[in-house]
Amino acid sequence: MLWDEIAAIGRDPGSGGYLRYALGAAELALRDWFREQARRRGLAVTEDGNGNLLARWGDPDAVDAVLVGSHFDSVPHGGGYDGPLGIVSAFLAVDELRAAGVTPTRPVVVAAFVEEEGARFGVPCLGSRLLTGAIEVDRAAGLRDAAGVSFAEALGQAPVGARPDLLAGFSSFVELHVEQGRALVERDAPVAVAEAIWPHGRWRFDVHGEANHAGTTRMADRRDPMLTYAFTVLAANKEARLRGAHATVGRVRVEPNATNAVPSTVTGWLDARAADQETLDALVEAVAAKAAERARRDGTEVRVTEESATPLVTFDDRLGTRLARLLAAPVLPTAAGHDAGVLAGHLPTAMLFVRNPTGVSHSPAETATDADCAAGVTALARVLTELTR
Amino acid sequence: MLWDEIAAIGRDPGSGGYLRYALGAAELALRDWFREQARRRGLAVTEDGNGNLLARWGDPDAVDAVLVGSHFDSVPHGGGYDGPLGIVSAFLAVDELRAAGVTPTRPVVVAAFVEEEGARFGVPCLGSRLLTGAIEVDRAAGLRDAAGVSFAEALGQAPVGARPDLLAGFSSFVELHVEQGRALVERDAPVAVAEAIWPHGRWRFDVHGEANHAGTTRMADRRDPMLTYAFTVLAANKEARLRGAHATVGRVRVEPNATNAVPSTVTGWLDARAADQETLDALVEAVAAKAAERARRDGTEVRVTEESATPLVTFDDRLGTRLARLLAAPVLPTAAGHDAGVLAGHLPTAMLFVRNPTGVSHSPAETATDADCAAGVTALARVLTELTR
Repeated sequence: MLWDEIAAIGRDPGSGGYLRYALGAAELALRDWFREQARRRGLAVTEDGNGNLLARWGDPDAVDAVLVGSHFDSVPHGGGYDGPLGIVSAFLAVDELRAAGVTPTRPVVVAAFVEEEGARFGVPCLGSRLLTGAIEVDRAAGLRDAAGVSFAEALGQAPVGARPDLLAGFSSFVELHVEQGRALVERDAPVAVAEAIWPHGRWRFDVHGEANHAGTTRMADRRDPMLTYAFTVLAANKEARLRGAHATVGRVRVEPNATNAVPSTVTGWLDARAADQETLDALVEAVAAKAAERARRDGTEVRVTEESATPLVTFDDRLGTRLARLLAAPVLPTAAGHDAGVLAGHLPTAMLFVRNPTGVSHSPAETATDADCAAGVTALARVLTELTR
Repeated sequence: MLWDEIAAIGRDPGSGGYLRYALGAAELALRDWFREQARRRGLAVTEDGNGNLLARWGDPDAVDAVLVGSHFDSVPHGGGYDGPLGIVSAFLAVDELRAAGVTPTRPVVVAAFVEEEGARFGVPCLGSRLLTGAIEVDRAAGLRDAAGVSFAEALGQAPVGARPDLLAGFSSFVELHVEQGRALVERDAPVAVAEAIWPHGRWRFDVHGEANHAGTTRMADRRDPMLTYAFTVLAANKEARLRGAHATVGRVRVEPNATNAVPSTVTGWLDARAADQETLDALVEAVAAKAAERARRDGTEVRVTEESATPLVTFDDRLGTRLARLLAAPVLPTAAGHDAGVLAGHLPTAMLFVRNPTGVSHSPAETATDADCAAGVTALARVLTELTR
């Protein structure tokens, strides 16, 4: 089966997770695999000048194509389903349509978007942002990975940016994705339709204190930013729980990060998400206020910088309702960003989720059963049949 | 003045701090400077086969020499006084003795110990540990810096290890050091004599949780090791304050350390010190117990590993009392490790501290006034006069 062909690509035998960074060796191998799949099916492959791959089944001149796909890239040591499942399922859905003798009146275009996770160049959904003009071309071109390689260098050209000409040729977009939570486990259903993407963002907390000798400096004489940081981590967790929201501090940087030195600076990144903008704003405000209050006690200073913020994305209501009825599937919100969230501002867009027994994602423990993956392909084939009719 | 000759060596113009890593370019320049100072004074320089430099004034065959000195290496972006002040003061004290026409009946040997901070190869007091046999030669030879260079490679030879022959030629050791706290500010005195070095050690806390998507994973479904880590940081601070001890978590490592991922593992290093072993043991035990308790709530696992532990070092009682009386100086304990702490097990050893107005150390803010430095030299000259008589 197709899944087995790519299972080994970019897998770290140590963690069992994937290291598939955009335009790195593993993702380039997956892109070659994409071209080969398209060739086997007689689909014409093009690139959009931004690193996104498109494989077209049907009339090259039609302006009502149905776009379907996802991304190949992973977070460091991520799971194998987040992204690739949507692309593999798209090819298999095309096969189901053909096997059923369906001749779609609208073309189907399978897409692989580049740098969805932002794990290499720092900006998530970079490919779909470029395609829709949601990021400036110069900024995108100049984004650099940890080794100093720019996105333009990795791509082999400067990205071309917004392609309204291309977008005008699509009538809708559907992204199938593994669920990154346990709602489908609880509802005992293999597939769901997405309703909305929670507003979310990243805030950087820079805590400045005073470097000092860890052995000799009396506790009362310290200005230790690690204490302010630690308090902020716990406050973020508590404030999110109180609001039914999500808050995570998963990344930290310490200067000088030495065992025998009180740090001079500790920087933490807060990832916060909530069902509505008001709750999200209140959450971030509460965490910032608690950090500032603790900083006064610790003799430190804290500065909060918004690094990115994405407002609520509501998927096309009519499309979602139509697909949920078609599939008799539950309708769920999601707290994750996706290329579908970026494209939703430009095309009628829908997402399908496939059940994930662990609920875990961005981890080797991310999984889906073969039966549920097959149910996802069948659901996607029904959606494509419906949308291309 | 001698101080100005070395002020620029290894200084980072950005932070104003020093990057003087053992056997790196800056420390090698300081070692050349040491040889030049010895040459100007007609002192014979030898190396002990372990990277420690010795400059001898007096009878090469006498077996009752007074050893005096400190180290050149710094922590990253550390201050300029921690270490070099003891070496510069030793040379200047020799000058004072000569200017006063003192002809010591015992030789004076000025020493520069290698890798006192452990900032390059990870083991503090590496030079004095080798000299006294407190570390195995093979282990020391194989210690590697961040670039993979071994201590033996940096030294240009395998270290020879314990030199009882050399130690047998010394009657005492005196190390002058900038104070790394504010006790002398409070006592309004320029110089003190050390009484003891607090027992201290390093404990690694490995907290294992489950990597997960920061956006989609419900708070209740998480096993987030960052929470356990943060709680442990605050607990260490609180437990140390309750006991009049010192506890610091200044170093942390996070996997995968990504903004949108609940970490799989967070490792923190606890530096803990107390006036006596019983208090230190109780402190570490209390922190470990609180971490374990919190881990149960977070669904994480915590493992505590002792990476190093140094018991209480009491300096020679008679020597300390004699010097404190000679100088009319206060007697203080210290919570920092020093080469003097290693040598104290082999020779009658004493330490002198010079007042530090900020109390800050391991930081560019570490300082001492010219007047206090001069008082330190005079005190050291009086000590050498007394001990070589």
